[in-house]
Amino acid sequence: MEIIRSIDFKINLHKVYQAIEEADFFAIDGEFSGISDGPSVTALTNGFDTPEERYQKLKKHSMDFLLFQFGLCAFKYDQTDSKHITKSFNFYVFPKPFSRSSPDIKFVCQSSSIDFLASQGFDFNKVFCSGIPYLNQEEERQLREQFDEKRSQANGTGALTKCPVTIPEDQRKFIDQVIEKIEDFLQSEEKSLDLEPCTGFQRKLIYQTLSWKYPKGIHVETLETEKKERHILISKVDEEERKRREQEKYAKEQEELNDAVGFSRVIHAIANSGKLVVGHNMLLDVMHTIHQFYCPLPADLNEFKEMTTCVFPRLLDTKLMASTQPFKDIINNTSLAELEKRLKETPFDPPKVESAEGFPSYDTASEQLHEAGYDAYITGLCFISMANYLGSLLGPPKMCVSARSKHIEPFFNKLFLMRVMDIPYLNLEGPDLQPKRDHVLHVTFPKEWKTSDLYQLFSAFGNIQISWIDDTSAFVSLSQPEQVQIAVNTSKYAESYRIQTYAEYVGRKREDKQVKRKWTEDSWKEVDRKQPNVSGPCSHTNSFTATGMTGKRTRSPDPGEAGLEDREPEEISDSELEQTDSCVDPLPEGRKKAKKLKRMKKELSLAGTVAGSAMLFEVPDTW
Amino acid sequence: MEIIRSIDFKINLHKVYQAIEEADFFAIDGEFSGISDGPSVTALTNGFDTPEERYQKLKKHSMDFLLFQFGLCAFKYDQTDSKHITKSFNFYVFPKPFSRSSPDIKFVCQSSSIDFLASQGFDFNKVFCSGIPYLNQEEERQLREQFDEKRSQANGTGALTKCPVTIPEDQRKFIDQVIEKIEDFLQSEEKSLDLEPCTGFQRKLIYQTLSWKYPKGIHVETLETEKKERHILISKVDEEERKRREQEKYAKEQEELNDAVGFSRVIHAIANSGKLVVGHNMLLDVMHTIHQFYCPLPADLNEFKEMTTCVFPRLLDTKLMASTQPFKDIINNTSLAELEKRLKETPFDPPKVESAEGFPSYDTASEQLHEAGYDAYITGLCFISMANYLGSLLGPPKMCVSARSKHIEPFFNKLFLMRVMDIPYLNLEGPDLQPKRDHVLHVTFPKEWKTSDLYQLFSAFGNIQISWIDDTSAFVSLSQPEQVQIAVNTSKYAESYRIQTYAEYVGRKREDKQVKRKWTEDSWKEVDRKQPNVSGPCSHTNSFTATGMTGKRTRSPDPGEAGLEDREPEEISDSELEQTDSCVDPLPEGRKKAKKLKRMKKELSLAGTVAGSAMLFEVPDTW
Repeated sequence: MEIIRSIDFKINLHKVYQAIEEADFFAIDGEFSGISDGPSVTALTNGFDTPEERYQKLKKHSMDFLLFQFGLCAFKYDQTDSKHITKSFNFYVFPKPFSRSSPDIKFVCQSSSIDFLASQGFDFNKVFCSGIPYLNQEEERQLREQFDEKRSQANGTGALTKCPVTIPEDQRKFIDQVIEKIEDFLQSEEKSLDLEPCTGFQRKLIYQTLSWKYPKGIHVETLETEKKERHILISKVDEEERKRREQEKYAKEQEELNDAVGFSRVIHAIANSGKLVVGHNMLLDVMHTIHQFYCPLPADLNEFKEMTTCVFPRLLDTKLMASTQPFKDIINNTSLAELEKRLKETPFDPPKVESAEGFPSYDTASEQLHEAGYDAYITGLCFISMANYLGSLLGPPKMCVSARSKHIEPFFNKLFLMRVMDIPYLNLEGPDLQPKRDHVLHVTFPKEWKTSDLYQLFSAFGNIQISWIDDTSAFVSLSQPEQVQIAVNTSKYAESYRIQTYAEYVGRKREDKQVKRKWTEDSWKEVDRKQPNVSGPCSHTNSFTATGMTGKRTRSPDPGEAGLEDREPEEISDSELEQTDSCVDPLPEGRKKAKKLKRMKKELSLAGTVAGSAMLFEVPDTW
Repeated sequence: MEIIRSIDFKINLHKVYQAIEEADFFAIDGEFSGISDGPSVTALTNGFDTPEERYQKLKKHSMDFLLFQFGLCAFKYDQTDSKHITKSFNFYVFPKPFSRSSPDIKFVCQSSSIDFLASQGFDFNKVFCSGIPYLNQEEERQLREQFDEKRSQANGTGALTKCPVTIPEDQRKFIDQVIEKIEDFLQSEEKSLDLEPCTGFQRKLIYQTLSWKYPKGIHVETLETEKKERHILISKVDEEERKRREQEKYAKEQEELNDAVGFSRVIHAIANSGKLVVGHNMLLDVMHTIHQFYCPLPADLNEFKEMTTCVFPRLLDTKLMASTQPFKDIINNTSLAELEKRLKETPFDPPKVESAEGFPSYDTASEQLHEAGYDAYITGLCFISMANYLGSLLGPPKMCVSARSKHIEPFFNKLFLMRVMDIPYLNLEGPDLQPKRDHVLHVTFPKEWKTSDLYQLFSAFGNIQISWIDDTSAFVSLSQPEQVQIAVNTSKYAESYRIQTYAEYVGRKREDKQVKRKWTEDSWKEVDRKQPNVSGPCSHTNSFTATGMTGKRTRSPDPGEAGLEDREPEEISDSELEQTDSCVDPLPEGRKKAKKLKRMKKELSLAGTVAGSAMLFEVPDTW
């Protein structure tokens, strides 16, 4: 179901709410106006990024793009017919300015992304001409305040109207004429009086003057002509009528406000449900969703984790799931389109799915890839297939594994990390994995060097893997950690290049940061310009030092481009698979979390500034 | 005529060239993805901006937007029928990446601008799905270099192919197998051999190996399958055939290159013609056109002026023309739509215009405003009406004033400055006007203050005009310069606000900049980060000290929002109006200028860095 602006959205919102209310779980997908504003995507995703580094890169280089299509597919299991009923929505989203005073959002477009979407038949007119507006929580709060303030002024409780207004000299004649007209009007039989269009400043003077001069008996409102000229209409009213009008106006304003909050209401409903949200390679989707519909992303990864688990208490990434045992060995290609195809074949069993009445059904045979609603739909299918496969491994086998099953819990709240060699996921529920990198070398060289030069340099060391950092440096991983020291030693007298161990590199980088920190503290101007609030390091700084290996969590390497299929990942244990389903209703938990988010955001607005300033000085202590 | 990507553009380009060749003058108009990325347009256009300040603001806050629709209307006068023949083009422009290695342009969209265009029926799909690509001059140069390099390598003149290639250990087996296959192929009767798809690095190794091993007798090329996999095709060829194929390839590459330069070729043709280019309120159009299709804008206004007159030797802004005597007194509203209507009435005479055969005609009765082609068309109409009106004032009257007439020369190369109170235009041909600002006060106050507070503060001084700078400061102009000192004196003991004369304000600002300069020089890191090339002040620094009043130039105040209609502008003298038409063909001059541009750009690439570094320290000495 395609949903665009205003009427369409208003009419269908209850359907969306109902789908969210009924669902067992959701799948989501976003389409963006760009991916990365950096020099190139590959340069920004180094194979040895730490999760912190990756978060910072994505935050810095991806958040100025617009999430302009949001796909939501709600899945509900029908026990009687043993099938899943789907309700799929495809929302077009655009930050149409609500009024002249509302924020005028700027967003970046990346021509390669736009060109790609264009080639897939994406309809940009639907976004820009009919996209649903939205507000983040701060914008919503400000708008509510504005309405309240306007209202309290209109009610005569504002301070401005309690004493005579100072009229500037050049406006006195104008205001005197207005008062004269009103006096005549009050003596007459007329019910209402239209004043001539005038400037906003003049209207303000009129409002203030009348509110002081005639606190009762008249109703003053501003109307707009077809030519967009604003003029004031004055009507004689008794107290009851005045109140009725006020209430009418209030109701209308509330509706306008809800319209302005727009698409964010859908996201709030998903979040408040506390239900499982499935996505494919969903880190960027999650970051954009929070950034666009809740609040700017925090400076620190740990705060981001906290915020994310508050908004979405249960996330599951199908790309990570497909890259983890027991799937890793039987799934070669984890791109969404290929995964969907693979999961139709043995040993998998395509789930029985039907679209709900009144909802258009997707045909996976004729692909509609990169339409967010469709991508969300097949992401959900992939999840069901893989969950059921896990059930088939149990003793006795379980045909259908629900979204609340303990068996899928090991995959909760771990988001796939693209192209990181040895850290498969970002762990939202605690510290991240810290793999040994004792087989990794950091090499610097002249900018003329190509991949072949590096292969040649390390030709004595057998298979190597190269991860470019920039034009003049790369990580090179050897197959044998023992060879690392040999490589470093042989390079000691080299002039054109330099080799150090990963540990040395990290150590030097930390030292550099400390020196930089000193400089930064010296040149106060720099600090002053960059950050309005300077204070001490934040409380999260040391949380990286905890080790990330918990027995319960599965671990798998990136099977994608890194080509490290030979390494042995930990597997999901039988005991994990055999735990019984949890049938706890997730809703109360969701609501609790939503409350916690509100509380947390208040704290964050303070902590955020502390963390923001700490970022400049912070060094990740462990890798 | 609407023109979109590739085939359409290629087929019609000769029509565009022909229209440019025949025309007497052009009118242009651009539509952008945004206007200003600053806090608000009003804050960025202060009524007392200097031209330098305005240029810097527009450069900083407007150049990241995309010019995505370009309107061109060519006007040619038909003596026989005394009518103008028009050829109007509406180009959709989009920086579609040319190849995987070509620049991936990012551009900003402003939601209010997008929303406005959407409300006017703008078709975004035409831009993003079918926009014509373009390259600026540096990108074109780089692409030509890439092609040349590739070609010289393919010809065997590259250094890489003269000695055996070093094959990395893990690739040796692969390459050996390829050579074996080729040896078999050379012994066989087959004409060509398809190799398996492989990686880019492997293809490079194959190319290098074969070019060294088989310098003659075979032709090697890379083809792409439908699945976008690249593979190598080897064919047996004699020398003649090899050369023919090379030439074919070269021609194809040249065509690809021209396709990539795309829409920039239209702009180059307009520029090289040296003919008059008319626009309405055209400063932003000109800045965007140069920025997008030539080169990034220079740091310094004087360099921008030089560059602009090189690219477009004759510009005329109809908004400035309509705001200047003798038009100022008889034209109230200079917005394009209103101007077009006004110029149909007495004393003006709507020109006889007809669209050329094969070109759709616009109907000014049913407005298509904000389609660039239409806006360009009516801009041209406005120019003709006003030019002819000038002719009607001559003795004896002249019915038709041509685009090359001396009578319109006073309006050449002066671009309208929006919302500047006392400097109506940016003078491209020399120093700008430096009006006295001895009736202007600079006021700082608490951020709670509103316009009414300022009116109240100055209520003793009669009519005042307020130009907000930011939340806590504004320029206030008094009607009597003598009152300025009184206002300053009365404020001496005020605590909440502060008043200084404009001269004091400029002096303090200059001092601040000098202090800042000292700081900047001290904190080397700051300087180092911002600018790769640090050197002395540039030669343009003092050019502002020259006075801008030349007897010949007309001058008029901004009649728009400033409301200063009572001031007396200089008028165009009769002697100016009575000069005879110049019939010099403008083309040679245009070509000369184009050459000068090339030379100048070379110099600029050096001077630019000098000027760039000087910008940080520079203080405009006179206002």
